[in-house]
Amino acid sequence: MFITNKPEAPLYIKVHADDNVAIIVNAGGLAGGTVFPCGLELIEHVPQGHKVALSDLNEGESIIRYGEVIGYAIRPIARGSWIDESLVVMPAAPELDELPIANKVPELLESLTGYTFEGYRNDNGTVATKNMLGINTSVQCVAGVVDYAVKKIKAEILPKYPNVDDVVALNHNYGCGVAINAPQAIVPIRTLQNLAVHPNFGGEMMIVGLGCEKLLPEQVIPGFDKSNILSLQEEKGFIKMVQAIMAMAEERLIKLNERRRVTCPVSDLVVGMQCGGSDAFSGVTANPAVGYATDLLVRAGATVMFSEVTEVRDAIHLLTPRAVDEGVGRALIREMKYYDHYLDLGEVDRSANTAPGNKKGGLANIVEKALGSIAKSGSSPISGVLAPGEKAAQKGLLYAATPASDFICGTLQLASGMHVQVFTTGRGTPYGLAMAPVIKVSTRNALTEQWADLIDVNAGQIATGEATIEEVGWEIFRLIIEVASGHKKTWADHWGIYNDLCLFNPAPVT
Amino acid sequence: MFITNKPEAPLYIKVHADDNVAIIVNAGGLAGGTVFPCGLELIEHVPQGHKVALSDLNEGESIIRYGEVIGYAIRPIARGSWIDESLVVMPAAPELDELPIANKVPELLESLTGYTFEGYRNDNGTVATKNMLGINTSVQCVAGVVDYAVKKIKAEILPKYPNVDDVVALNHNYGCGVAINAPQAIVPIRTLQNLAVHPNFGGEMMIVGLGCEKLLPEQVIPGFDKSNILSLQEEKGFIKMVQAIMAMAEERLIKLNERRRVTCPVSDLVVGMQCGGSDAFSGVTANPAVGYATDLLVRAGATVMFSEVTEVRDAIHLLTPRAVDEGVGRALIREMKYYDHYLDLGEVDRSANTAPGNKKGGLANIVEKALGSIAKSGSSPISGVLAPGEKAAQKGLLYAATPASDFICGTLQLASGMHVQVFTTGRGTPYGLAMAPVIKVSTRNALTEQWADLIDVNAGQIATGEATIEEVGWEIFRLIIEVASGHKKTWADHWGIYNDLCLFNPAPVT
Repeated sequence: MFITNKPEAPLYIKVHADDNVAIIVNAGGLAGGTVFPCGLELIEHVPQGHKVALSDLNEGESIIRYGEVIGYAIRPIARGSWIDESLVVMPAAPELDELPIANKVPELLESLTGYTFEGYRNDNGTVATKNMLGINTSVQCVAGVVDYAVKKIKAEILPKYPNVDDVVALNHNYGCGVAINAPQAIVPIRTLQNLAVHPNFGGEMMIVGLGCEKLLPEQVIPGFDKSNILSLQEEKGFIKMVQAIMAMAEERLIKLNERRRVTCPVSDLVVGMQCGGSDAFSGVTANPAVGYATDLLVRAGATVMFSEVTEVRDAIHLLTPRAVDEGVGRALIREMKYYDHYLDLGEVDRSANTAPGNKKGGLANIVEKALGSIAKSGSSPISGVLAPGEKAAQKGLLYAATPASDFICGTLQLASGMHVQVFTTGRGTPYGLAMAPVIKVSTRNALTEQWADLIDVNAGQIATGEATIEEVGWEIFRLIIEVASGHKKTWADHWGIYNDLCLFNPAPVT
Repeated sequence: MFITNKPEAPLYIKVHADDNVAIIVNAGGLAGGTVFPCGLELIEHVPQGHKVALSDLNEGESIIRYGEVIGYAIRPIARGSWIDESLVVMPAAPELDELPIANKVPELLESLTGYTFEGYRNDNGTVATKNMLGINTSVQCVAGVVDYAVKKIKAEILPKYPNVDDVVALNHNYGCGVAINAPQAIVPIRTLQNLAVHPNFGGEMMIVGLGCEKLLPEQVIPGFDKSNILSLQEEKGFIKMVQAIMAMAEERLIKLNERRRVTCPVSDLVVGMQCGGSDAFSGVTANPAVGYATDLLVRAGATVMFSEVTEVRDAIHLLTPRAVDEGVGRALIREMKYYDHYLDLGEVDRSANTAPGNKKGGLANIVEKALGSIAKSGSSPISGVLAPGEKAAQKGLLYAATPASDFICGTLQLASGMHVQVFTTGRGTPYGLAMAPVIKVSTRNALTEQWADLIDVNAGQIATGEATIEEVGWEIFRLIIEVASGHKKTWADHWGIYNDLCLFNPAPVT
């Protein structure tokens, strides 16, 4: 990566030697007539994060960023021009039946030893980063009653158990009024099953059901003892329902309160990587820094997931070669095909992903967005693939196939067992999850300054040359350990701002 | 309807003269050997709400309830047997291209005059049954911040404005991470647009957006003045975001606090009818009583909606004849076809509707459930059809096409402008909506007794002969007026138990 290292001077970032475009770093963009040290002169205003042509481009000529074709010039474009998204014809998505598989498996990086965190150790060997009571629900009908009860528990009971961090109602939009026997129903059901046994709940589970729903409470945790299930239709009215939930919750709070943090190896951690509200800096500052942290975690033996199908679809040809073997490569392709088909049924394709804010931030299309998005995966071999909501059962770098929707991706990564999430944002989003801490990484200095009480890590300094990708990568890695240990609170946890769970249900509602 | 009118004696209900089955009324069911006054003897135990054969049935013979074929006998069934759902072969759904239309339009019932309620009159002529501040959101990203702000508003500001009933955050799972240009995206977008201008918000709207989302805040309320929109990405951090939301909310609370109830004709009301957690009594007690109230409301000039596509699909041949004209009949068929296609894409059909609790309650299949469900529509002509989330713009009985999922149906009826909802339940569900009062009607005496602090009206007495359909219908009608006037609180409003909004999004997520 080339960075002209003078904060006061006009700056652009060119990522790869082959690139014929670069993005403007300076806040507010740069005016026409600006001359860069290399001699490039802007022939018009180019906004921050947007692309400038580094050479004259003919009509139809490839526009290259990250060393990859992100589109074709719709008309001749002169050197120094602003390449607005309207000038970029989007290429077709990579053909899924012709991808090279496992032909460039990266060498494993040197292993990192000696890194530990302070976590809770569960009876089944898993670890936890928070000590929480999770109140599962089998159906949305019970949500109003559960919310009422949780409010009372937090006010009247939780203060008696200071070692417990929180009580979380796992409300969701599933359980009844859905086609529970549809082939795709497996996705939301598996998700709820895996959320219910999230390690942060310490094995002290309970379920509130209604009594006539399609998703039986005993399906939520197969083999679960019935004494841990409350069925509201069996209770004598509302007050008794609330009392029953509170009593069952307190039994569990007593046990959870006994838990203490112990030293655990970083290899026990499951970390999820996600981006939301991306801009053109995402792929050059925050995501590469997260990618560096991904490599550090993999080197330390941890499990790391990256996700978001529509944001890897156009870069899949760069991922299948990194699959450790043919099976993993095929699984990557299987998940891409699954989502192609899903979008096709709704008469759209992966280009439905980009938001107006992405484009305002300089991203011309989903191809450019995807190339920046996969930087979160670092440079390690891809050792496994999870279908939406499947639990992670191995170490190393995993591709957890999820929609790119922040809340669905977050929910599915939690179902996969995520202990900490790292979330990069360029435009800025006040994202938070109740079940696991979320570390928010900003792609730009300006956002970090503006949202000083929401952003946890500033990767913007990479663009201005004040920090390197490696430095910010290490900062993220160390912060993951501190947050996982409970030594530091993320801003989302500090304020207690949490988004609801959001299931991925590709099956119909009834 | 034939009811053996001795509370201590064995009771069954036969709905129609042609029926060859009846349902058992007695709590706990009746034992084999029980003899009814008519001479029928049970040859085995039949649970409450379940069907008994009134005559010998041959294999393949039609099983008739409500005067309609609800299925075919899978094997010979002797008189006095329990007809469990496993004995009932489900018929095909009515063929949609061969339906009679507008050929049996009911005569309008005598109009009811002089009925009024105390409501809030809005500047645009609509009325309101509650006086609430609605905080709209354009995207799910802002939910955590809005929830935080609403909590503070309720604690610190709302008490200063005693004429305002509540502050409601209209959080939802839409706005970004969705295929906003998919053909079906019109459904969730229209729903949010119509929810935003719900009459109970008194025209004092505000929107909290993020800044980079796909659903632009100005799309939520087209033509809305930008001064009513907060964009979190323009705020300097979390504390400023919360302060800005609180300040904008207080400006509106000051105005809302000036509103006073005035006398309004019942013809200004829009009432939604729904059922959830149905049993075999639904179609003979609560739903017919609601149907009677529907007729009273229509006679008084109000707007009444019934809904739930999968619960009218198998009774559509009884509805198209009641359409006031060819156009309304065709619109009914259009909505059935729409949903057939939607379910087909997910590889299921309307039979995906019935829940285990429905079957436990005596409903053999969706045909029997649908025949009971449409009783809510009473006996008036069907004068209009709304596609999912469309606003009601006419008086009389409307079919508002929605999924049967309680929460999606409730959200869509709210989008259609519903002021009060009447919700019947047999199995029991603690359902509530924040935006409009919900009157819960029980189908059974036992449920009413068990959930005395949740059920508002007991229709169970119809089965035991203690009340008539007409009496309970009038009770519901009068309660709608009292609740709409704020003179009486529903149990859900008393406890403040509310389910979240739940959008119908037939388009893909990205």
